[in-house]
Amino acid sequence: MYGSIVCRYHEIATKGLNRAMFEERLLANIRLLASCDGIEDLVVQRMRGRIFIRKKKNASFTEEELEKIGKTLSRVYGIESFSPVLETEPEPEKVISLAADCASELIGKLLEKRESISFRSRARRSDKSFPLHSKDLEIEIAGRIWEKFGDRARIDLTSPDVSVGVEVRDKIALVYYETFKGPGGLPSGCNGNVLALLSGGIDSPVACSMAMKRGCNVDFLTFHSYPYTPMESLEKVKRIASHLNLFQKKGRLFACNLSEIQKLIRDNCNPRFRTVLYRRMMFRIAEMVCRRYKLGAIVTGEAVGQVASQTLVNMSVINDVTSMLVLRPVCGMDKLETIARAEKLGTYELSIEDLPDSCTVFAPDSPAVAAKYFLVEAEEKKIPDMGSALEEAFRGIERFDDL
Amino acid sequence: MYGSIVCRYHEIATKGLNRAMFEERLLANIRLLASCDGIEDLVVQRMRGRIFIRKKKNASFTEEELEKIGKTLSRVYGIESFSPVLETEPEPEKVISLAADCASELIGKLLEKRESISFRSRARRSDKSFPLHSKDLEIEIAGRIWEKFGDRARIDLTSPDVSVGVEVRDKIALVYYETFKGPGGLPSGCNGNVLALLSGGIDSPVACSMAMKRGCNVDFLTFHSYPYTPMESLEKVKRIASHLNLFQKKGRLFACNLSEIQKLIRDNCNPRFRTVLYRRMMFRIAEMVCRRYKLGAIVTGEAVGQVASQTLVNMSVINDVTSMLVLRPVCGMDKLETIARAEKLGTYELSIEDLPDSCTVFAPDSPAVAAKYFLVEAEEKKIPDMGSALEEAFRGIERFDDL
Repeated sequence: MYGSIVCRYHEIATKGLNRAMFEERLLANIRLLASCDGIEDLVVQRMRGRIFIRKKKNASFTEEELEKIGKTLSRVYGIESFSPVLETEPEPEKVISLAADCASELIGKLLEKRESISFRSRARRSDKSFPLHSKDLEIEIAGRIWEKFGDRARIDLTSPDVSVGVEVRDKIALVYYETFKGPGGLPSGCNGNVLALLSGGIDSPVACSMAMKRGCNVDFLTFHSYPYTPMESLEKVKRIASHLNLFQKKGRLFACNLSEIQKLIRDNCNPRFRTVLYRRMMFRIAEMVCRRYKLGAIVTGEAVGQVASQTLVNMSVINDVTSMLVLRPVCGMDKLETIARAEKLGTYELSIEDLPDSCTVFAPDSPAVAAKYFLVEAEEKKIPDMGSALEEAFRGIERFDDL
Repeated sequence: MYGSIVCRYHEIATKGLNRAMFEERLLANIRLLASCDGIEDLVVQRMRGRIFIRKKKNASFTEEELEKIGKTLSRVYGIESFSPVLETEPEPEKVISLAADCASELIGKLLEKRESISFRSRARRSDKSFPLHSKDLEIEIAGRIWEKFGDRARIDLTSPDVSVGVEVRDKIALVYYETFKGPGGLPSGCNGNVLALLSGGIDSPVACSMAMKRGCNVDFLTFHSYPYTPMESLEKVKRIASHLNLFQKKGRLFACNLSEIQKLIRDNCNPRFRTVLYRRMMFRIAEMVCRRYKLGAIVTGEAVGQVASQTLVNMSVINDVTSMLVLRPVCGMDKLETIARAEKLGTYELSIEDLPDSCTVFAPDSPAVAAKYFLVEAEEKKIPDMGSALEEAFRGIERFDDL
């Protein structure tokens, strides 16, 4: 029945130039993610403020095809909602007939099993030259349906069984019955590339998804301490990165072995500052990766809290080693909210596998909750040839391109 | 009927020392906000992992008093939920009788108007030495209610009309019928003091509330450009700050007149970079305020987006002027979500009054969306005696302590 799927978007950049870029990026992402999902033969086009997805040769979509494409579209940031639609010319009788006829087909099917059903018709016209007002369209369509079904079809404006939607635009009119929510936000990549510190924990994947939702394409940097952490820890992070890549053009995973640096810190520095010192090294390496690959910001899953690494003082001391923009999308959230987002995203289950990560290696009993700058800097001076150690860790980074 | 209100909290710091600090701060905040709301004669105490609020001389709370206190508690970060409770000794017969008797009183009242009602009893015991298991307690209580009301009272575990709650703790048992949600998070102030850039817009108040929820006490810095912006713009920000202060120990509002600096920028620099240059000055002044008043981070309502000031490049260039920790709690959110939070917070209506602010003064037609560092730094060099201009703006800051 349906020849097209229309994708609607919400947050268009206000300037004309940026709107085109937004749309082009969205198009590209739809094509890319559909292709990754094994969906071929799609024609994806921008038209008049909407994106239309059709099949080659204007064939109709089967139910299964619609379901499959729907799953893809639910992962494309920038899409606010989408609907399978029927298209016709923006001529009143054609629009009313099409809407009423197809609504009737759906209603007829439902009435095979029920005594009566409820429906609603909603119309919107962005083309003001269309001769009927939206309200009149709605009334006409409802009228046709009543003619056919009488008492068995009643109006319900709140939660109808069948909801007929009509959009009259310049040169085209769309009729639809279902609207599915898209993930919203901005098309991934339209706002640059960033590097996210990805651990196996719950927070960093959520931070990644929030950066993606704001249009950033996300590459990932993870730290491990093999052989002090098992290889399985890295495998876990790869699974998380791979899942996150379902939502964007694939980001690369950079895996850095921090163990040599951690040994230097363990051997030379006060144990109370270990956590803060580790994280300062991580941020330095992150900046090196950003400079090398021209990434515009560091993204972390840091939250403001009460455990040692989450106090303002410690976050400041860690932040101090880099002049790069550091985005912390979950810094103002509490755990329950982050967990809920992780569940919705699909990373919660992947995150809760209990595997040791770099932060647990040589972890001190009583990390300082408020490590003062000058004390931390003094500790760092005790590390012999810190610059070389960082260079070596950076050079040893493994890159995974196709997760 | 009720002699106490019990407040429950969720996110206790894991270390023993921090737990006490969390609780003390929560106590102090409850007392402070209650007193600001004109509620006197409260005795607020920590006991066995809960906070109890009673009236002096152990008098009972009236309905109005409960409602008033409830409004206060709904603004105290750190409280997960609260209930008016009846207290008794943790002795089975006493607990069962109290729960059943008072449930019966409530049920009796409802049955004056209805044929039957539904109820549920839920028990929890943190004291494992209590002779009855939770399930048995629940059954006993339900049994007493059935004895009294027979068919007219049926069990409903999903959405009962009357829900009896019992908590058996060490040395005390609590019986309650209603649980109200608190705002959650951490007690305001337990995680230090921060400075939020507060404009009249929708985002920065939401960012403030998220910082408060994570335990930061928030002072506010706003910029105006009087006489190029009307005094009413500052009054609007004061109203927002005042509203935000309902949730914390009062934060100070610092108001800085940016107009002289803006004139220097207008007279000397390329208009395309004006927005970025203004914001760099704002961040520099914010850092000066933080250093002077020992505030641990800057908080902004910046979101990653597509308008000029929201691109990653511009955010980076702006961020570059300060080494302070900058928290951007809404950086990963879209507008709809921020608006929803602002409405819940009560600041949306205050924010949407359309008044000009500093950012609109001498605003250029086409701000650069990607202002490169070296270009921006070159523009700044054209400003005569920038250091003095900043000093003067800083010295001219007005402080409002009692909003």
